[in-house]
Amino acid sequence: MSTQTLSRKRKLKKPRKASRFKHAKKVGLPPGTLVHVGEVKTEQPLVTVFDYKADAHSEQSLTVEQALTLTPPVHGIRWVNIYGLHDPTLIAKLGTNFGLHPLVLEDILNTSQRPKVDSFEHNLFIVTRCFQYHTTELDVTSDQVSIILGKNFVLTFQERPTGAFDPIRERLRTSGSSLRQSGTDYLVYSLLDMIVDRYFIVLEQLGDDCETLEDAVLHKPTTATLNSIHRLKRESMELRRSVWPLREVVNHLIRNEQGFFEPNTVIYLRDVYDHTLHFIESLEAIRDMLSGMMDIYLSSVSNRVNMELRALTVVAMLFMPATLIAGIFGMNFEIIPWFHHPHGFWFAITIMAVIALIMILIFWRRQWLTRPDA
Amino acid sequence: MSTQTLSRKRKLKKPRKASRFKHAKKVGLPPGTLVHVGEVKTEQPLVTVFDYKADAHSEQSLTVEQALTLTPPVHGIRWVNIYGLHDPTLIAKLGTNFGLHPLVLEDILNTSQRPKVDSFEHNLFIVTRCFQYHTTELDVTSDQVSIILGKNFVLTFQERPTGAFDPIRERLRTSGSSLRQSGTDYLVYSLLDMIVDRYFIVLEQLGDDCETLEDAVLHKPTTATLNSIHRLKRESMELRRSVWPLREVVNHLIRNEQGFFEPNTVIYLRDVYDHTLHFIESLEAIRDMLSGMMDIYLSSVSNRVNMELRALTVVAMLFMPATLIAGIFGMNFEIIPWFHHPHGFWFAITIMAVIALIMILIFWRRQWLTRPDA
Amino acid sequence: MSTQTLSRKRKLKKPRKASRFKHAKKVGLPPGTLVHVGEVKTEQPLVTVFDYKADAHSEQSLTVEQALTLTPPVHGIRWVNIYGLHDPTLIAKLGTNFGLHPLVLEDILNTSQRPKVDSFEHNLFIVTRCFQYHTTELDVTSDQVSIILGKNFVLTFQERPTGAFDPIRERLRTSGSSLRQSGTDYLVYSLLDMIVDRYFIVLEQLGDDCETLEDAVLHKPTTATLNSIHRLKRESMELRRSVWPLREVVNHLIRNEQGFFEPNTVIYLRDVYDHTLHFIESLEAIRDMLSGMMDIYLSSVSNRVNMELRALTVVAMLFMPATLIAGIFGMNFEIIPWFHHPHGFWFAITIMAVIALIMILIFWRRQWLTRPDA
Amino acid sequence: MSTQTLSRKRKLKKPRKASRFKHAKKVGLPPGTLVHVGEVKTEQPLVTVFDYKADAHSEQSLTVEQALTLTPPVHGIRWVNIYGLHDPTLIAKLGTNFGLHPLVLEDILNTSQRPKVDSFEHNLFIVTRCFQYHTTELDVTSDQVSIILGKNFVLTFQERPTGAFDPIRERLRTSGSSLRQSGTDYLVYSLLDMIVDRYFIVLEQLGDDCETLEDAVLHKPTTATLNSIHRLKRESMELRRSVWPLREVVNHLIRNEQGFFEPNTVIYLRDVYDHTLHFIESLEAIRDMLSGMMDIYLSSVSNRVNMELRALTVVAMLFMPATLIAGIFGMNFEIIPWFHHPHGFWFAITIMAVIALIMILIFWRRQWLTRPDA
Amino acid sequence: MSTQTLSRKRKLKKPRKASRFKHAKKVGLPPGTLVHVGEVKTEQPLVTVFDYKADAHSEQSLTVEQALTLTPPVHGIRWVNIYGLHDPTLIAKLGTNFGLHPLVLEDILNTSQRPKVDSFEHNLFIVTRCFQYHTTELDVTSDQVSIILGKNFVLTFQERPTGAFDPIRERLRTSGSSLRQSGTDYLVYSLLDMIVDRYFIVLEQLGDDCETLEDAVLHKPTTATLNSIHRLKRESMELRRSVWPLREVVNHLIRNEQGFFEPNTVIYLRDVYDHTLHFIESLEAIRDMLSGMMDIYLSSVSNRVNMELRALTVVAMLFMPATLIAGIFGMNFEIIPWFHHPHGFWFAITIMAVIALIMILIFWRRQWLTRPDA
Repeated sequence: MSTQTLSRKRKLKKPRKASRFKHAKKVGLPPGTLVHVGEVKTEQPLVTVFDYKADAHSEQSLTVEQALTLTPPVHGIRWVNIYGLHDPTLIAKLGTNFGLHPLVLEDILNTSQRPKVDSFEHNLFIVTRCFQYHTTELDVTSDQVSIILGKNFVLTFQERPTGAFDPIRERLRTSGSSLRQSGTDYLVYSLLDMIVDRYFIVLEQLGDDCETLEDAVLHKPTTATLNSIHRLKRESMELRRSVWPLREVVNHLIRNEQGFFEPNTVIYLRDVYDHTLHFIESLEAIRDMLSGMMDIYLSSVSNRVNMELRALTVVAMLFMPATLIAGIFGMNFEIIPWFHHPHGFWFAITIMAVIALIMILIFWRRQWLTRPDA
Repeated sequence: MSTQTLSRKRKLKKPRKASRFKHAKKVGLPPGTLVHVGEVKTEQPLVTVFDYKADAHSEQSLTVEQALTLTPPVHGIRWVNIYGLHDPTLIAKLGTNFGLHPLVLEDILNTSQRPKVDSFEHNLFIVTRCFQYHTTELDVTSDQVSIILGKNFVLTFQERPTGAFDPIRERLRTSGSSLRQSGTDYLVYSLLDMIVDRYFIVLEQLGDDCETLEDAVLHKPTTATLNSIHRLKRESMELRRSVWPLREVVNHLIRNEQGFFEPNTVIYLRDVYDHTLHFIESLEAIRDMLSGMMDIYLSSVSNRVNMELRALTVVAMLFMPATLIAGIFGMNFEIIPWFHHPHGFWFAITIMAVIALIMILIFWRRQWLTRPDA
Repeated sequence: MSTQTLSRKRKLKKPRKASRFKHAKKVGLPPGTLVHVGEVKTEQPLVTVFDYKADAHSEQSLTVEQALTLTPPVHGIRWVNIYGLHDPTLIAKLGTNFGLHPLVLEDILNTSQRPKVDSFEHNLFIVTRCFQYHTTELDVTSDQVSIILGKNFVLTFQERPTGAFDPIRERLRTSGSSLRQSGTDYLVYSLLDMIVDRYFIVLEQLGDDCETLEDAVLHKPTTATLNSIHRLKRESMELRRSVWPLREVVNHLIRNEQGFFEPNTVIYLRDVYDHTLHFIESLEAIRDMLSGMMDIYLSSVSNRVNMELRALTVVAMLFMPATLIAGIFGMNFEIIPWFHHPHGFWFAITIMAVIALIMILIFWRRQWLTRPDA
Repeated sequence: MSTQTLSRKRKLKKPRKASRFKHAKKVGLPPGTLVHVGEVKTEQPLVTVFDYKADAHSEQSLTVEQALTLTPPVHGIRWVNIYGLHDPTLIAKLGTNFGLHPLVLEDILNTSQRPKVDSFEHNLFIVTRCFQYHTTELDVTSDQVSIILGKNFVLTFQERPTGAFDPIRERLRTSGSSLRQSGTDYLVYSLLDMIVDRYFIVLEQLGDDCETLEDAVLHKPTTATLNSIHRLKRESMELRRSVWPLREVVNHLIRNEQGFFEPNTVIYLRDVYDHTLHFIESLEAIRDMLSGMMDIYLSSVSNRVNMELRALTVVAMLFMPATLIAGIFGMNFEIIPWFHHPHGFWFAITIMAVIALIMILIFWRRQWLTRPDA
Repeated sequence: MSTQTLSRKRKLKKPRKASRFKHAKKVGLPPGTLVHVGEVKTEQPLVTVFDYKADAHSEQSLTVEQALTLTPPVHGIRWVNIYGLHDPTLIAKLGTNFGLHPLVLEDILNTSQRPKVDSFEHNLFIVTRCFQYHTTELDVTSDQVSIILGKNFVLTFQERPTGAFDPIRERLRTSGSSLRQSGTDYLVYSLLDMIVDRYFIVLEQLGDDCETLEDAVLHKPTTATLNSIHRLKRESMELRRSVWPLREVVNHLIRNEQGFFEPNTVIYLRDVYDHTLHFIESLEAIRDMLSGMMDIYLSSVSNRVNMELRALTVVAMLFMPATLIAGIFGMNFEIIPWFHHPHGFWFAITIMAVIALIMILIFWRRQWLTRPDA
C-alpha cells in the first residue's frame, strides 16, 4: 500500500478527533452527577451476566430493564459486563445494587479517563483503555474499559461490543480451567492480561506502517510521506501517553496493599507489568525510528536542492560560452576573422562544440553529471 | 477565522504582559507589609457572605465598610468571598478578625503567586489560578484565587467577579444538597473542582485554535502562521508551568497530614487530582502537536525554495539553447548555411522549437512541471 | 534602545569573564590555606558593626585594624558586615574570634562558590550570590555573599558595597520592628529575603531586553540580533544554574534539623523558598522565549533566501524570452519575416512587450511580485 | 571497508527484523500456555548436563527423549543447559521435574523478553540477552538467555549454541577452581559475568564501524553515509534499551533480599553491575558521536549548496559582461565606433578579456575560486 | 593560536583513542585473573613508600623486587604509591600482603574503570581518574588512580608518574602539618582533594580554547571551526561522563557508613563534593556555550548562501536588460529607429547605462550592495 493512497484516503475521511480536547460538558454540575461524556458508540446498552463456580456456570443476556434488578450473587462468582454507557439510569441502579461510590459511576460514564486505580473499602475500581488502529487513516482510537473487582462479583463496562473478552468466556465455560478454580481476582487479572495482549496487535500494525513509510522515505520521499510520519509520530506519542499510567496502575495492584489479590495472582500480575513495560519500550523504538525518518527526509530535501542547483549550473556553463562566441562573431566590424573563409561558420561552430566537450569532460570527471551521491 | 485575521488583530492590540516579569515593586519592604502587587481588575472591592447549615442559609452583599466587622460565625458555616484585592486595609482587617498569618495576607495581595498550599495551626491557605483564553489574541491571562479553609469558615479572594463560583452558590441554596450536609472541607473541594473544571474550557479553545492552525500550516503556510504557532506554544508552556504546581498542591491536600479534610472528601480530592493530571497531559499533547506543525512549516519553506529553483532551471533550459541557435545564425560570415534558402529563417525557428519540445518532454517525464511532491 | 547599539557597545567593552573558568590558583595548597580567589572589587575592606536588642541599638564603622579585635557580643545581638574580601588576615582573625571552621574561611575568600549551606556545631554557614545585569553588555555579573548565623551574632561578607542591606539596617533602627524583637535567625531570614527579592530586579531587566529583542526579531532580524539572543540565552542559563542550588539551600534551612531557626521564622523561610521557585520558573519562561525567537530568526533567513531566489526567477523569466526574440530577428537570412515592413521593428518590440506583460500577469496572479508571505 | 560497500551489501540482504514488533501470536490463550514465540534458530534441541562437586565432575549430552527424565541432583550441583527452545514438551517436562512456575516456562519460550528477574520461593528466574553485531549489515541481533538458580541446580536456556559458556565449562573441569569450590550462586554469577563481558565485543565492533563512518563523513559524505549513521544510531539505541533493565536486574540480585546469594558472591555481582554501567555509558558515548556526525553531515550538505551557488555566480559574472559587449557591437547602426578600424574586432575582444581578467582577479582576492573553507 | 593551526596539527597526529571502546581482552577469563588492560604508560613500575607519624617520617624508593616484601606498618602510617600497573605479579603480591580482595586487584589493573567506591571489611577501595588536556589536539586523555584506605596504610596506584601528589608529600615532610597529625582518612581526603583540584586546570584550558573558538565562529567561521567545536563538545561530554560518578563516590564517603572517616574529615570531604559539583556545572556551561556556537555557525552558513544568491541576482539584473537592448538594436529590419542617426549607437549605450544606474540605485536603497546584515 503506497503512502499516497494512505494520505489521499486520509483526506477524504470525516473530521476526526473533534472531541480530543472536549471535557467541558460537565462544568458546573455537582460531583457525582451522572452524565455520559463521550461519543455514543453503540445503539442500545447490552448486559451479559456470567455466573460461575468451580463445578457450574450459567450465562444470560439481559435487556436494560432486566438488568436493573441485578445484585451480587448469593454464592459463586458473578461477572456482569455492560456494553454501551450512554444510559445513566442503568449505571446508577447498578451502582446502588453493587454498592459503588458515586465518583466511580461518574468516572465510568466519562469515557476520556486516563488509566487509574481507585481502592474503596469493599471494591477496587480500575480504568483501562483499549486501542484500535485504523491503518488507512494512520489513526489510533480508543475505548474506555472500566473494571470493578468486588468480593464475589466483577463488573466490566465497555463502550461497545468488541469481542475482546470472548476468549475469557470460552475459558470460563471449560470446567477444569484455572479461571473456574480461582476467585474474582484471577478473573480481573485475566481481563487485564487480555487487554494488554491486544495492545501488541496495535503495535504490530503500527510497526508495519512504519516500515512501509521507511521504504518510502528512503526511495521516494514526498510531502505526503512527511505528513504521514508526523501523524504516526503523534499517534504513537499519544498511545504512549495513554498507556504510561497503566504501568503505575498494575504496579499498584502488585503492591496489593488492600489484599484484594491472592499471592498467587500477584505473580501473574507481574507478568502483565512486564508486558506493559515491553509495550512502552517498543513504542519508544517506533518513535526513535520515526524521528530518524524525519531527519532523512529533511536531508533528502536539501540534497534535491543541491541537485537542481547543479543542473542549473551545468546548463549555464554549457551554453554561456557558446552564446558568447556566437555573439562575438555577430559583431559588426568591417574586418572579422574567417569572415570570407568558406568554412568560417563551421569553424565557429567547432569552437563552440570543443568548449562544450571540454566542459562536459570536466563535469564528468567531477561526477557532476550523475546524482550527487549515487 | 483565518490566521491572518488573528495575527492582524494581534498586532493592533495594546502591549500586553507588561508586567510579566514584574515583581520588584516590593523590594526592600519588611515581610508582612501589605502592598497590592498586580493589575487592578475591578473598580470597587465587593464582599459576599454566605452563611449556611444543613437546614438554613442566608446571603449578604457587603460594602467594604460593612465587611470590616466580619468575624467567624458562632454556629453554622460562613463563606466570605472578596472580589478585588487592591484595598490592603480590608484584607488586613479580615486577616485580624479571622486569625490569618501576615504572610498569608501578603500572598493574597501579591497576585503573581504560583499555586501552593501553606498549612497553619488553625487554617489552610491555598493559592490557585483561573485562566481566560483570548482567542483573537492567542493569549492566556490568569487571575489569582486564594482560598482559606478554617474550622467553620472559608474565605475566597478573587481579583474580579467572574461568576466561576455561581453554580456552587446555586447548590448551596438547595437544602438537600451534599454541600449543605457537609463541612467546610467539602466546600473547599467543590471550589477547587470548579476551578479545575474550568481549565478544560480553556483547553478546548486552545485545542480549537491549534486545529485551525494545523489546517493553515498544511494548506497555506505563511510567516503569520509561524508566529501564531510560536505564540500558542509559548502560551501552552506557560499554562503548563502555572498548573504543574497545582498537582503537588492537590496531592498535599490528599495526604491530609493535618486532618483538615474528612476521609470521604479525600476521595473526592483524588478526583480533582486526576483531572489536573489529565489537563497537564492534554497540554503536552498540544505542545507536541505544535512542535510537529513547526517542523512541517520549516520543511514547507525548504520545499518552496526547491520549487523556485526548479522553475528557474526549467526556464534557463528552455531559453538558453534557443538563444544560442539564434546567436549562431546571427553570426556574420559570408557563407552561412540556409542563408539563401527561402525558408532558412523557418528552419532555424523549427530547430529551436524541436529542442524546446524535447526539453519539455524530458521535464514532463521527470515530473518537473508539476509541483515537486503533489 | 536598538539591538545594533547594544551589540556595538558590546564589541567595544573589554574582554570580560576572563576568570569564568579560573579556579586553579589554589591547586596544591593545603586545605584551609586562606588565599583570596577572584577579582578585587573594592579598594579597602570596610567593616560595619550593628549591635541591637529589643530596646537599644548602636552602629559603628571600623577600619581593618579596629575590626581585628571584634568578638561575639556579651549581650544583645551583633551583626558584623565586611565589604571586600581580599585581606586574608582580617578574615582569619575574625574566624578565630568568632570560632569559625577553617574551611568556612576558605570558602568566604574563594568568591566563585555555588550557593550552599554547611552546618557546624555552633553556627550555620550560608553562601549565596547577588546578581547585577548590565543591559548595554547583555551581561550578568555576580558577587558572593556569605552569611554566618551564630547564637548571638551574624556575620556577612560581601565583595563590595552594594547597598543591598540598607533597608534592613533601616528597619533595625526602628525600635518596634519585628527585626528588633526577634533573634539572629530572623535577621538571617531578612537578609536572604532581601537577596532573593533583588533577583527580581535582574529578572525584570532581562525580561525587558528579551522583549526588545523579540520586536527586533519579528521586524528586522540581523546577525547582531542572533548574537544578542545567544548571549541572553547563555546568561539566563548561567543565572539559572547559579540560583538552582539556592532552592536546595533554603529547603535545607526549612527542614531546620539543627534547630537554628525558630518555628515562626521557618514559616517565613517557606516564603523565600516560594520566591526562589518563582524566579527559576520565570527564567525558564525567558529561556523558552529566547528559543522561540531563535527559531523565528532561522526561519526568517530561509524566507529571505526564498525571496532572493524568486526575484532572480522573475528577472530571468521576463528577459530571457525577449532576448530570444531579439536574437531570432537578428539572424542573418535573406528572407526574414517583416524585414521590409515599415513597422517590423515595432512588431518585434510589441511581441516582446506582450510576452512580458503575460509573464507579469502570471506572476501577479500567483502573488510572486509581493513578499512571499506578507 | 568503505561505507558504500557496507550500504550496498545491506540492500542485498533479506528483509530483517520482520518480527521486530511481533508479539501478537499468543493473544487470547490462557496464561501458562506453552507456545514458542520467536524465530527457530536451531534444528534440534540439545541438552547438556554438567554435574559437579568440589572433588568430582561429569558431563553428558542428552537427546530430547533422554532429557525428559532429568531431575535435581541427589548430591552435588547439576547444571542443565538447553539449546533450542521450540519444543514446548521438553520445557514443560523440565518445568515439572525442577518445580518451576508455569509463567517461568512461558517466559522462557517467549524469546522477546526484556531482561528481568523474578524470585519464587525455591528458585530465582533471570532473563538476559546476548548480542551479535553483523558488521556488513550494521545490524545487532540478540538471543534470549534464561537462567534459573535453584538450591542445587542451575538451568540455562539458550536459543542456539553460541559457545558463550565454554570457558565456564573449562573452568568447571579444573578441580581446584573457585567455581568447583562454590555453590550454584557463584555459577550463576559466572554466567552473568560471561554474558556481560561478551557485550564489550559487540561494543568494540560497533565502535570500529563508528570510527570508519566518522572518517567517511569528514572526507566524503554521501547519502549512504547518512543512512549508515542512522542505522547505527538506531541499533545503538535499541541495544541500550535492551541492556538498561539489566542494570536493575543485577542491582536486585545485589540487594539479595531472598538470600539466594552468598555474601562473598554479592561482592562479585557488584563487579558485574559496574561493567553493565560502563557498557551503557559507552553506548551513550557512541550515540553522542553519531549525533555529532549527523550534524557535520548536514552542515557539509549546506556547504556544498554554497559551493555550487558560487560556481554559478562566478560563471555568470564572467560571461554576462562579455556577452553584453558582443551584443553591443552587434547592434545595427550606420555609425559604430571602430567599425572601419582594421583591428576593431580585436579591440572588442580585448575589452572582454580585460573585464574577465579583472573579475577573476576580484574572485581570486576574495578566495572565491578555492573551496569555501579550505 | 588559530583554529586552522589546531585543526592541521590534529590531522597529523597518530590515530588516538584506538582503545576507546576496547574492553574485550579479558573475555572468558575467570574473575580475579590479573591481566593488565590498557596502555602501558611507563617503562618500569616504580614504588615509593612514605612512613610517618606525628613526630617522624621516612621516605624510600623501591624497585619491584624490593616492593614484593612490603607489608602494613607495625606502628605509624604507611603510604605506598605505585607508578605503572603492567606488572601483575607485583600487584598480586601487594594484594596478598595488604589483604586486598582479588576483584580490587583486577580493577586496579583494568585502567578503564569509571570512578567508584567499594567497601570491604577492613579497607575501602576508591577508583578515580586524572585528566590531561592536549590543547593542540583538542583532546582529553585520562589516567586511572586507585586508592586503598586501610586502618594504618594507604595504597595509591597510578599509571605513570605525574607529580600530582608532590605537594602532599611536601606537606607530609612538614612536621607540624595537619596531615602529620591526622590518620589515614585525612591523607585519602587530601589525595582526593588534590585530584579534584587538578580538574580545574583542565577546565581552564578547555575554557580558553572554547573562547578562541567563539572568536573564530563570530568572525571567520570555517569547516575546521565546526570540526573543532564538535571535538570539544565530545571531549567535554566525555569528561562530564567520567566525573559524574565521582559525585556519587564522594557522597558515599560523606555518608561514611562503615566509619572509615573521622567526623572532622567528613567536613573536609563535603568541600571536595562541592568542588566536584562546581566542576560538573562548569562543564555544562561549556557544553551550552559550544551548542550556541554550533547554532551561530549553521546560521552563518545560511547567511552566506543568501549573500551569494544576492550577488547572482544583482549581476543578472544589471546585465540582462542591457543585453536585451543590444539584442533589439541587433535585429535585422530595414527600418530601425536611430539607424541613420550619427549618435544612434551612443543613444543605445546611454539607455543601457541609465537602466543599469536605476537598478544600482534601487539596490543601493534596499541595501543589497552591502552585506545582508552588517
